[in-house]
Amino acid sequence: MAPKLTIRDLLPTDWRGIWPFLEQIIRAGETYTWPREVTEEGARVRWVQPPPCRVFVAVDEADVIVGTAKLLPNNEGGGSHVANASFMVDPARSGLGVGRALAEHVLAAATADGYRAMQFNAVVETNIGAVRLWQSVGFKILATIPDAFDHPVHGLVGLHIMHRNLP
Amino acid sequence: MAPKLTIRDLLPTDWRGIWPFLEQIIRAGETYTWPREVTEEGARVRWVQPPPCRVFVAVDEADVIVGTAKLLPNNEGGGSHVANASFMVDPARSGLGVGRALAEHVLAAATADGYRAMQFNAVVETNIGAVRLWQSVGFKILATIPDAFDHPVHGLVGLHIMHRNLP
Repeated sequence: MAPKLTIRDLLPTDWRGIWPFLEQIIRAGETYTWPREVTEEGARVRWVQPPPCRVFVAVDEADVIVGTAKLLPNNEGGGSHVANASFMVDPARSGLGVGRALAEHVLAAATADGYRAMQFNAVVETNIGAVRLWQSVGFKILATIPDAFDHPVHGLVGLHIMHRNLP
Repeated sequence: MAPKLTIRDLLPTDWRGIWPFLEQIIRAGETYTWPREVTEEGARVRWVQPPPCRVFVAVDEADVIVGTAKLLPNNEGGGSHVANASFMVDPARSGLGVGRALAEHVLAAATADGYRAMQFNAVVETNIGAVRLWQSVGFKILATIPDAFDHPVHGLVGLHIMHRNLP
């Protein structure tokens, strides 16, 4: 059954609840273009960036962090009205709607913050669950960069550029 | 007449020769997604990044810097075999082949460094000279992100994603 989720802004003490599943995701190397051997501090710096970046967490009824997302401008200056976002869901909570709940929260936050569109730069094409989720909330694949990601199981696969306008 | 150019790696003393024309380009706000009001130190940090980023300068016969380029991985980890590059040419030396000479040097350096492809993430579609130059050295437009750049003259215009494989 789907957990009852609360999504809120990151608190300074939240990292300890994020790192265990974020580490699993990065060490697996199948969905993020991060160094697989990244240190905990390197991961924290990459995930918890200063404003204008915003970081959110999804917590279950027991106040356990089950997912996290970040929202930031995709570019600076003349490109700062387009948002970028990233999502990590505890693999043990996969398929329970955590990613969708985070996606809806982040899209609403981006709209409220005045962003005009959202763009993902590197969605691994074999990450079918993520691709389908983004398509179901209005994203389109604008291009697939061929052979741009070295997947530990599948070898060279494409990276999708995905985009949607915001209301 | 085209100047006789030498292209070499950046020296620590080169920044003073780069900043005057780089500042013009950034303040104009027509081609880069940087804050137009960036400070000199902010610009230096954005341009002269640590390894694996490499920075090059093009100098004329009088040893005056007329252009600069940087080469770095477009992503980390499983995406680090695709290069990214950026180019700045002194507007006073426009049309003299400086951009092309830098492009050929950077493509050769990227190939020598083992990159498999090169990707540009944000080529402003109204920057026709740059788009034509990249097409002439083998890049293709894989997508244009609509309205992704707020141009100070033209308003919202697209950003091209451009890509080519390396030999």
